[in-house]
Amino acid sequence: MKQYKKVLLAYSGGLDTSIIIPWLKENYGCEVVAASADVGQGTELDGLEEKALKTGASKLYVLDLVDEFVEDYVFPTLQAGAVYEDGYLLGTSFARPIIGKKLVEIAQKEGCDAICHGCTGKGNDQVRFELAIRAHAPDMPIIAPWREWHIKSREEEIDYAEAHNVPLKIDRATNYSKDKNLWHLSHEGLDLEDPAQEPQYEKPGFLEMGVSPLQAPDKPAYVTIHFEKGVPTAVDGKPMKGSDIVRTLNQLGGANGVGLIDIMENRLVGMKSRGVYETPGGTILYFAHKQLEMLCLDKETAHYKALVAHKFADLVYNGQWYTPLRQALSAFVTETQKTVTGDVKLKLYKGNIIPAGTTSPYSLYSEELATFGEDQIYDQKDSAGFIHLFGLPITVQAKLKQNWEE
Amino acid sequence: MKQYKKVLLAYSGGLDTSIIIPWLKENYGCEVVAASADVGQGTELDGLEEKALKTGASKLYVLDLVDEFVEDYVFPTLQAGAVYEDGYLLGTSFARPIIGKKLVEIAQKEGCDAICHGCTGKGNDQVRFELAIRAHAPDMPIIAPWREWHIKSREEEIDYAEAHNVPLKIDRATNYSKDKNLWHLSHEGLDLEDPAQEPQYEKPGFLEMGVSPLQAPDKPAYVTIHFEKGVPTAVDGKPMKGSDIVRTLNQLGGANGVGLIDIMENRLVGMKSRGVYETPGGTILYFAHKQLEMLCLDKETAHYKALVAHKFADLVYNGQWYTPLRQALSAFVTETQKTVTGDVKLKLYKGNIIPAGTTSPYSLYSEELATFGEDQIYDQKDSAGFIHLFGLPITVQAKLKQNWEE
Amino acid sequence: MKQYKKVLLAYSGGLDTSIIIPWLKENYGCEVVAASADVGQGTELDGLEEKALKTGASKLYVLDLVDEFVEDYVFPTLQAGAVYEDGYLLGTSFARPIIGKKLVEIAQKEGCDAICHGCTGKGNDQVRFELAIRAHAPDMPIIAPWREWHIKSREEEIDYAEAHNVPLKIDRATNYSKDKNLWHLSHEGLDLEDPAQEPQYEKPGFLEMGVSPLQAPDKPAYVTIHFEKGVPTAVDGKPMKGSDIVRTLNQLGGANGVGLIDIMENRLVGMKSRGVYETPGGTILYFAHKQLEMLCLDKETAHYKALVAHKFADLVYNGQWYTPLRQALSAFVTETQKTVTGDVKLKLYKGNIIPAGTTSPYSLYSEELATFGEDQIYDQKDSAGFIHLFGLPITVQAKLKQNWEE
Amino acid sequence: MKQYKKVLLAYSGGLDTSIIIPWLKENYGCEVVAASADVGQGTELDGLEEKALKTGASKLYVLDLVDEFVEDYVFPTLQAGAVYEDGYLLGTSFARPIIGKKLVEIAQKEGCDAICHGCTGKGNDQVRFELAIRAHAPDMPIIAPWREWHIKSREEEIDYAEAHNVPLKIDRATNYSKDKNLWHLSHEGLDLEDPAQEPQYEKPGFLEMGVSPLQAPDKPAYVTIHFEKGVPTAVDGKPMKGSDIVRTLNQLGGANGVGLIDIMENRLVGMKSRGVYETPGGTILYFAHKQLEMLCLDKETAHYKALVAHKFADLVYNGQWYTPLRQALSAFVTETQKTVTGDVKLKLYKGNIIPAGTTSPYSLYSEELATFGEDQIYDQKDSAGFIHLFGLPITVQAKLKQNWEE
Repeated sequence: MKQYKKVLLAYSGGLDTSIIIPWLKENYGCEVVAASADVGQGTELDGLEEKALKTGASKLYVLDLVDEFVEDYVFPTLQAGAVYEDGYLLGTSFARPIIGKKLVEIAQKEGCDAICHGCTGKGNDQVRFELAIRAHAPDMPIIAPWREWHIKSREEEIDYAEAHNVPLKIDRATNYSKDKNLWHLSHEGLDLEDPAQEPQYEKPGFLEMGVSPLQAPDKPAYVTIHFEKGVPTAVDGKPMKGSDIVRTLNQLGGANGVGLIDIMENRLVGMKSRGVYETPGGTILYFAHKQLEMLCLDKETAHYKALVAHKFADLVYNGQWYTPLRQALSAFVTETQKTVTGDVKLKLYKGNIIPAGTTSPYSLYSEELATFGEDQIYDQKDSAGFIHLFGLPITVQAKLKQNWEE
Repeated sequence: MKQYKKVLLAYSGGLDTSIIIPWLKENYGCEVVAASADVGQGTELDGLEEKALKTGASKLYVLDLVDEFVEDYVFPTLQAGAVYEDGYLLGTSFARPIIGKKLVEIAQKEGCDAICHGCTGKGNDQVRFELAIRAHAPDMPIIAPWREWHIKSREEEIDYAEAHNVPLKIDRATNYSKDKNLWHLSHEGLDLEDPAQEPQYEKPGFLEMGVSPLQAPDKPAYVTIHFEKGVPTAVDGKPMKGSDIVRTLNQLGGANGVGLIDIMENRLVGMKSRGVYETPGGTILYFAHKQLEMLCLDKETAHYKALVAHKFADLVYNGQWYTPLRQALSAFVTETQKTVTGDVKLKLYKGNIIPAGTTSPYSLYSEELATFGEDQIYDQKDSAGFIHLFGLPITVQAKLKQNWEE
Repeated sequence: MKQYKKVLLAYSGGLDTSIIIPWLKENYGCEVVAASADVGQGTELDGLEEKALKTGASKLYVLDLVDEFVEDYVFPTLQAGAVYEDGYLLGTSFARPIIGKKLVEIAQKEGCDAICHGCTGKGNDQVRFELAIRAHAPDMPIIAPWREWHIKSREEEIDYAEAHNVPLKIDRATNYSKDKNLWHLSHEGLDLEDPAQEPQYEKPGFLEMGVSPLQAPDKPAYVTIHFEKGVPTAVDGKPMKGSDIVRTLNQLGGANGVGLIDIMENRLVGMKSRGVYETPGGTILYFAHKQLEMLCLDKETAHYKALVAHKFADLVYNGQWYTPLRQALSAFVTETQKTVTGDVKLKLYKGNIIPAGTTSPYSLYSEELATFGEDQIYDQKDSAGFIHLFGLPITVQAKLKQNWEE
Repeated sequence: MKQYKKVLLAYSGGLDTSIIIPWLKENYGCEVVAASADVGQGTELDGLEEKALKTGASKLYVLDLVDEFVEDYVFPTLQAGAVYEDGYLLGTSFARPIIGKKLVEIAQKEGCDAICHGCTGKGNDQVRFELAIRAHAPDMPIIAPWREWHIKSREEEIDYAEAHNVPLKIDRATNYSKDKNLWHLSHEGLDLEDPAQEPQYEKPGFLEMGVSPLQAPDKPAYVTIHFEKGVPTAVDGKPMKGSDIVRTLNQLGGANGVGLIDIMENRLVGMKSRGVYETPGGTILYFAHKQLEMLCLDKETAHYKALVAHKFADLVYNGQWYTPLRQALSAFVTETQKTVTGDVKLKLYKGNIIPAGTTSPYSLYSEELATFGEDQIYDQKDSAGFIHLFGLPITVQAKLKQNWEE
């Protein structure tokens, strides 16, 4: 086995990344530097350093990435309107590139000769991390213990942890596999693995970012979001930085049962996988952004942008953030957002988001034009000519067909 | 003005098409044959013949198109997953082609030398009707009074009706402009013309096919829909013909506040227009169909079909049903639906549709594969090779970039 | 008929736009200001002012647009790789927007109250001109005599000209309908109107920008083109401005029989139309640009850009240059061109363009990687893992299918 | 190492697959059954059985796949108009699926417990073969010696061959890596690996299917191809089966220097690779088919089909022939070909293909419509209305912009 001197480990303090510390030292004979990224997952960072050191790491970095995550990864994706398979708001997907990039920065600063992550060999995250690392350090070796070691289950992990004195409050009860950050919380596994099963949203402890529609109050709540060039900048008239907007809307959305998604998605590595996602604030932001675009984008732009959004979502999902294509699509998106400025009022009620009024200084809607009466711009007689020419291929073909059939 | 001998009029019995009868006779010196299409709009057909004759028509055809409409137009569009601008379920759009085609059949049978419709010159329906007519009778003249006459408002229509003894219960109060059929009910106009206004869903008389989420019962309702090759064939285990499935789900969806959509759409004729749509059964069917496809379509097919759905929706919206491209896209769609067979259970609750279990004999989901443990098919070590090659362009570019920057 | 005080006429000095001068004065009672755009068509500008004044115009503007045309319209389209219907290099299409925009500038400066053009009512150019004018002066009335007057043929035009003392050397022989500028020359009409006819390329006078492959010298010519960020900047090592590059390559390409295209295209106004195009320099530039992109663009970007190119071409063809979508697509294109820098050597021989060596500092090609032997980056064993995962959906489906069929 | 009883080897009689026979026996302790597919590569099949048996195989199957290859793989791809990266006519790509499928049939008949191929670990063919095998036998083990053994070069192969008494006429001179079948011949390697090098087309022995444009006769040759529903069925009025059409056109095209392509392509496994392809007959067929489609497909269908062709090409290139998406795209394509029937006359001259007249009973071109004079169907006045509505979004935006800027 190749040996390393110093390995940087993407560390969360959970069972997986905790046992990797002794495993790395045992197998690669290396010093282990740990790094934890704060992308708003809200877990306890107090005591994390102590835990990492006790488990055998030589150092712990804690990286506050929340604002950069929201502004440089989440909002550009929101502007693109990118949704994976028409359902998944990419919460885990776009958190990986920023972490991968930061890991490289620390690894280079620390003089590490490899980077290690705790992703399993069946998921998307291994791809996302590794692509991000390679984009910034193409020669950096990457260690993925789940693809190397003989541990095959949570049970075996716990045994390994106990055997190596890993200081964990160990809980042998299995739980959903979850991933959390400021944008979302995902749930996979257990009963969800049977697509015939309805998720138990109302079971205490299942939902963490809010309640189910059934549990939400029987009274609507209103909220108004302001966007500047496609970026949310204020809630109910109060200017806020991006992360605070997401926090505020997470609270409001969660309380009103908004943003629960249950999908069977296609993973990059070729298999289907069922996930339940809580994205209360994100769901509101996507909805609001679309309302504003309906008013401010012209039809041709809107229709083409809807196609671009599919590709954008695939790239984000696949971990291809740092690619020329993602950058070129972002250039397209940015150009479309120049006039996506205005206010969107929404009514939240037991899981529903109901439009309650949208305004924009760049609105392309003209009441005069849309009404059925007379106006200055539109002469109804023009539509006869329009239809003749728009329908000309149909007319010509129908005429010719008469000959074909004769 | 060119004169005609006998004109076939698409007749509803409402104000617009009623005054057209005397107007046609006066202006074109022609006999007027009226034809009413029943596409499930549920309006009174009793007395319609008498009314048409009293208004001056020489004959009234009533065409029962409900089943053909659902089976040959609605369900193929559902299979395509086509939604216009990610919101509108095309309720009015796909009703026009079938009516247009039937008008041609009657006109030819009756020996009419022109066809007349009552669509305004600012809307999409004029295009849809006329394209359908031309596809089947490219030489048939089409009369569109709204593009010809001097009547400019509802007021003037009523004056004209009174002056010509049109037997209408005349109500000078304005109302929303509505279009109804078995699939949906649309609302346009009045306060909706200001996008800053929230629709008054709870106001008595506004909604007709159901209630708003706020008015719906505080208790979920379950329903299970069976699909065969992408076509719904049974509800709660009870086989039904298509139109009965839509009726059943309209009832259930409407009662539970499902299927309200409020969008600012881009009309074909170049303007934006705000519409509120009630599509209770349709919304459930689209949702259910997608659930099943998530289980039964492979990723490549699903992703490409999502793009095709955009084009399909545009064609339907634009009235291009009878075109080679729509037919070719339908051939694509039909091929994808071969395995879209199974049962989808849904929970309806105050406007929400919540997946409650999907099953299919053709499910491509494998629990064994998706779980994070070992299995027979998937070797986690393979993912290292996969990532290396999938990420190779990123690695190569990152390596080369180092040289560029030196 | 509405009257105008001063009308700006897009004037070429040809028969069409010459007779429009008296026709406008007669019918609109207006002063006529003429404006001629030089987009490299190479026609005689000497004496044009005198001719315009003699025909009744009060003034003639001659606009030198060649460099702006090439740099701001032609090259962005070249960078996009946009080709209409895989054949037409958009020579006429992108000349219209720049002229339309300049017409508005002059009209506003001169205080004209309408703009007039001489396009027929069956072609694309009327659309392109009018869209360009509206984008810059939405309220400016536009006069299109061919859609208004009773003249129906070249014969009637000549009669009108003679009756109004229009000072033309009148030639009653019919000729192809041609449009020329620095980029191309188009031919339509006469024998070309029968798609069963082979164009008579070798007939003296047919081709103007070069010779046919049969007439070209039996000796290859080499040329090397340098691009910076997708823009050609030098030929055979000699830096030149854009228009000189096109001129130089027109000569070289024309002499070697390069750039003849014969297509049946679909006009915007719904009909098919047969055109023969000479685009010698443009064909070389497109070919060279693609050679360089094959070396410098990664696969994902190249594949997606190929789709974008289709849309870009449609927009240019349809006259939608000044639209948000064209601008957003250009932002995408510009981003992709950052590394499209290098030299492309080509061999021109009797109509053929044969690649003769491409180099770039940003080449993504690695000889080490591509050869079948060992290398540092690529471990052939990785491909087993890659194939397993890439083919996983096929494997899973094939396995499940065995059950379905049992 | 896992042992097998009987392995089926895809065998060509060349160096690679010859040494695999002893290697398999040595390493897997198995009987080796060899199978050679005839897809028109034109190599000597005489003596092949003897050679295989002498090298140690227990049996040789020779499969005549030429007609099935052309009819079920080549022509459906031609109908799709699928070209990989706008240059490569997929000659190798679509030969792999048919061979893979036949290998499975023989392996199952013979009771083999594994299939072996001789593709390298850096190419596309390993993927194509393995996907085809898995689609038909998902549980069949696949052996790819190049990914397993320690042989790294042609030199080492020859040493191995000599050491194992493989009866080859051994030629230590290196050569281009070539792949040949009825459709094409590819060249890779040697000087071609430097993209700055011009291929030496005129060097004796380089081209095999024809001559270069410089070497071709200085006299044009005419040929007329008849298509029925997009499938070529006759040449110069003589009905022929598909493979004979390709043969005939290969001769004619090759003799006239037609069908040489030199591209830098993106392999599936992530790297760029330079290839020179000879596809004389195929290039003519693609050209002819497009000529006919220009006449027979309406614009909307043609434009959308051009996008579908990109996806189709990717699927074929990637070996995803036996996938639901390829099948669904084929359903689309088949539907579009219903009227692609007619005759295309072409002039071949020193590498050029020049259209010389196309006719079809389903032509959508109307000379009456296209000419600029009057006609029955098209009223030029209609275009004013068309332009107003087509340009309405531009007008509205330009008007609103005036307010924004105030």
